[in-house]
Parts: sequence; C-alpha cells; structure tokens
Amino acid sequence: MSMTNKGPRIGIIGAGAIGGFYGMMLARAGFDVHFLFRSEYEAVVADGLLLKSATLGDTHLKPVNAYRNAADMPPCDWLLVAAKTTSNAALAPVIAQAAAPGAKVLLLQNGLAVEDEMRVLLPDSLHLLGGLCIVSVHREGPGVIEHYAYGSVNIGYHSGPAQAEDGGRAILEEAGALFRKAGLDAPAMDDLAQARWQKLVMNIPFNGLSVLLDCGSLPLMTHPRTRTLVRELMEEVIAGAAACGHLLPDGYIDVAWAATDGKPDFKPSMLLDYREQRPLELGAIYAAPLAAAAKAGRPMHKVEMLYQTLCFLDERNRR
Amino acid sequence: MSMTNKGPRIGIIGAGAIGGFYGMMLARAGFDVHFLFRSEYEAVVADGLLLKSATLGDTHLKPVNAYRNAADMPPCDWLLVAAKTTSNAALAPVIAQAAAPGAKVLLLQNGLAVEDEMRVLLPDSLHLLGGLCIVSVHREGPGVIEHYAYGSVNIGYHSGPAQAEDGGRAILEEAGALFRKAGLDAPAMDDLAQARWQKLVMNIPFNGLSVLLDCGSLPLMTHPRTRTLVRELMEEVIAGAAACGHLLPDGYIDVAWAATDGKPDFKPSMLLDYREQRPLELGAIYAAPLAAAAKAGRPMHKVEMLYQTLCFLDERNRR
Repeated sequence: MSMTNKGPRIGIIGAGAIGGFYGMMLARAGFDVHFLFRSEYEAVVADGLLLKSATLGDTHLKPVNAYRNAADMPPCDWLLVAAKTTSNAALAPVIAQAAAPGAKVLLLQNGLAVEDEMRVLLPDSLHLLGGLCIVSVHREGPGVIEHYAYGSVNIGYHSGPAQAEDGGRAILEEAGALFRKAGLDAPAMDDLAQARWQKLVMNIPFNGLSVLLDCGSLPLMTHPRTRTLVRELMEEVIAGAAACGHLLPDGYIDVAWAATDGKPDFKPSMLLDYREQRPLELGAIYAAPLAAAAKAGRPMHKVEMLYQTLCFLDERNRR
Repeated sequence: MSMTNKGPRIGIIGAGAIGGFYGMMLARAGFDVHFLFRSEYEAVVADGLLLKSATLGDTHLKPVNAYRNAADMPPCDWLLVAAKTTSNAALAPVIAQAAAPGAKVLLLQNGLAVEDEMRVLLPDSLHLLGGLCIVSVHREGPGVIEHYAYGSVNIGYHSGPAQAEDGGRAILEEAGALFRKAGLDAPAMDDLAQARWQKLVMNIPFNGLSVLLDCGSLPLMTHPRTRTLVRELMEEVIAGAAACGHLLPDGYIDVAWAATDGKPDFKPSMLLDYREQRPLELGAIYAAPLAAAAKAGRPMHKVEMLYQTLCFLDERNRR
C-alpha cells in the first residue's frame, strides 16, 4: 500500500506521551511516520519533536510530518491510536479518513471494551488491533516527551478481514517485526480481553485512588489503610475477570503488587488528567469492567464506589 | 446532692456548639449550669455566651460560670459531655473530677460503643447515659452559637448503680423533666445501641462523603452517582445493624433519606472538623460499627472503603 520506500506508512493519532514516544521510536528507526496534532501543531512545526531518555538516548526529529487535519494526511498502512478513550467516538471518522485501504488500526489505550466500541464505528475493511503499552513516559511540554523506563507493547488482533483467514496471526507478526526494528518488544497476545483485564489490576486501584486522594502511588502504598485498599481493589478486579471467563495467571496479584511496592512514587495518568482538568477515562477503565463483572454475577463493590466518587469529581473538575 | 436552690447542678464538658446549646438552654430555664472551657475560656469570661436562634430567640448569658480546669468546678449532679469522641480517653478523669457522688454522666456524642469505652474508665458509682441530639447548631466563634433548627435529645441509660434497680427508668424520667423545663423534648430510649445504629444511618454516609469529596449534603444528593452511593451506604448500615441484632424500624431508610433529600445544603460536623484540621471522629462513627458488623458476619464493604480513605485523609490533614 505504501507509496514510500521505507516500508509501511505509519500514522499517529493522538500524539501525546504514548503516541509521541512510539511515533518517535519508529521514525528514528527509519519508518515513514506522520503525526496528527491538535493544540501542539504549531510548536512541533517550529521546534520539531524531542524525545528525552536516559536509557534510549535523546532524539530530535525535525522537520516532522505534522498535520492539523486527518484530511491532509497521506493514506497510512498502520494507524497507532493513542488518544484518550474519552474521545473514541469522535476519533472513528478521523481514523477512517487517514487509513489506506485495508489499513491496520492499533489502539494503544487502557481499559476494557475499547475495541468493541471502536469496531462498530469503523469500516469493516479495516483491521482492528489492541495494544497494551508497558512504558513509563511523560509529556513534558508541547512536542517534548520524557521517557523513564520500558517500552514494550503487547498486541492482540481484535477483528477485521484477517479473522476468517488466520485470526490475524500474520498481521501480529508484521506488527512485531515493525516494533522490533525500532528496538521495542511487541509480543502477540492470544486473548486481548484477558490482557486488558490484567492491566486493569494495576490501573483500577492506582488511577482512581490517586485522583480521589490527590497523591501518587507512594503515599497510597505507605499508609496501612490505603495499602490494604489497593490490595482489595486488585482482588476484586481479579475475581471480576475470573467471573468473565478470564482466569488471570496464578500469583498475578503478587506481580502487580511488586510492580509498585517499594518502588518510587508514580503519578498515574488519570491524576495528571485530573490536575489539568481534562476528562477522566472513566468509561473504559471503570464503567466497562464494572458492567462486565456485574453481568457475570460478580459485583466489584469497592471498584464501584471508586467509580461513583470519580464521576462526581470528574464532573465538578470540568465545570 | 446540689448545694443550690435551683435543682440539680449541671456541668457542661466540651462546650462547643452542642454543649454550648444545651448548656445555654438549661441556664436560661433557671438551672445552675457550669461550663468547662479550653481555648474559649477568656473570650467567654470577657463577653459571656451568646445563643442566636430564629426560632428560640437570642440569649445572652453573662456572667458565665466558666472554668478552665475541672478541679475548680463545684461537684455537679449532671454532667453533659459534648466533646469530640476522639478525646474520650482523656476526658474520663476530667468527668470523674467534676462529678458529685452518684452523678449522672450523659454523653451527647455520635457513634457506636462510646459508652462502652467510657464506662471502663469511669468510677462504678457514676451513672452513664447516652444521648442522641437532634439539633442543627453551629459554633460561629468563641462563645457564639447559632441555632438553626430542632433541639430534642433521645436519652438511654447505659450502665451504673440504677441498672439493678429499675434499669435507670427513674433517672431517664428525671432527665426528661430537666430538658422539658428548658423547652426541649427528651424522650427515653429503651435500646441505646439500636438508637446509635439508627443515627449512624445518617452519619456514616454524609460525614464521610462530605470530607472525601469536599462538599456539603446538597451536591452529594444531586449527582446521580453519589446519590446512589449515599443510599447504598445507608443500606449497608441498616444490614449491619440487623446482623448485630438491632432491627431498625421498617421503612427507616426512607425516613433518613427524606431528612436530607430536597433539603438545603448541610455541612456535616466532620467536614467542619476536617477543614479546621481537627482530628476526625473515625473510631466511634466508622471503626466501631465496622468491627461490630464484621464480627456479626455482615461486612460493610463501601463503609469500609470510606473509612480506609478517611484514615488516609485525616492523617495527612493533621500533619
């Protein structure tokens, strides 16, 4: 499909910290990457994109293939979607516009059921994939992304033309090769929903409690009461996942626990969103898993209370 | 016992809004009332006590029988204790010091098990009673109390010398007569613990959520998610009470609900305490009922989460 000699053409929709990081890594590996910006467009045209990383080295990309409108982008073979899930309904037509025929759309987002919701809004001819990023990055300012650690992304095929063929296996291999060329691991996942539940074990307690109690991960893991609460929320999510047919690996709670316990303070993205009065991703991270677990007969009481209080705070915060 | 000709001598321990209100009402009815103050002592000696009320009229009391130390007080036949439950352990010796032989100690406090905890710290010769105040008052400043509505107090006999006699019935009648002379209703309660559970149906949701979400009752009852959460917390408390053997009256949840629904905004005392960085009454209002319900095999999940987050906030707030 691509008109360039650099392999597939890659479009980045939602070039914040996550989209910016993966786009920059692919661009510096020689891929033809095109970025769709909103408020940062002018700053990026003027100064380019800067990726700062102690482990990966600093990268300055200038000029950048930057666009303000999807209509101006060349047709892309791969589209990496890293915008907030709160804008997914508005994003579908943007994606369709930037997509080459038979393009692969990879959602680099958190939460449950994000692909299900996107699927019904996209043309059937597009492949839809889901990716779970294991990366610690922060948007320092317009066009400036700081990378702290990690960088891999687990990818699963959700739906599209390849379903009937090989279940998307070839496309997952293509994605793996693409990220590996950029120095990033991108293993294929058999069960996307299970992987999303697995990530929720971390996201549900830390995202929500950090907003509710206005603090990072360290105070939450230090006070004995909130420490217990974090653990209980994780247990509820694991039980909810199991009720939905996604039995997480044995001892997974200890893996999730060890990822934060005794580690430096970490400010979840939802806390940063809250402090900047952006809408919180409550639908994908709370409402969807709560509905799924309740439907499966395993209500998650404390997760639900977290969601109820976050809805209140989110609404007041954006007024 | 009393040395005056005005009937029993009454001591007020903890003369904030509640203690000040009942003390003033009794004093203006002609009773011999003595107030123990801490930080407000000098202001009260200089300016007296002022009770402002649209329904009861304004009352200015000056001079006031004011004391800085319990050792200076004359022995009192009745002691009304309206200090925060957070200081109950420190209060017991103060109460014992101000008490005439065989005095009646009436705890005007919220929460569960407050009498049980106080009992073991008091001499056996003292009568211990519990009172549930139905009154809306606010301490406007040193020695100035604003009264908005209501004023009755339900009183139960907890323990003491009268237990073996008539279960405290005569003393409850004496208390009722005393308050009635001051124009206030004071019905006797048969089951103090049941009455305390009943009051917790209101206190547990509104005190805690107002602190957690930094708002009064009106926003909580307006947003659909917190409105549902208030109701669920009430249901948990009612189920917890039932498991502990205190079956609340049929339809009581609707009574509790109607007390706030559609009513003007109300700032619970815990929110005022939090804003002034005073310790929160978490032991009596949360820890004690949670422990009782858990022991009875009916955990209150959302109440517990409220308690866990409040412990975190209280500790950070007082640093």
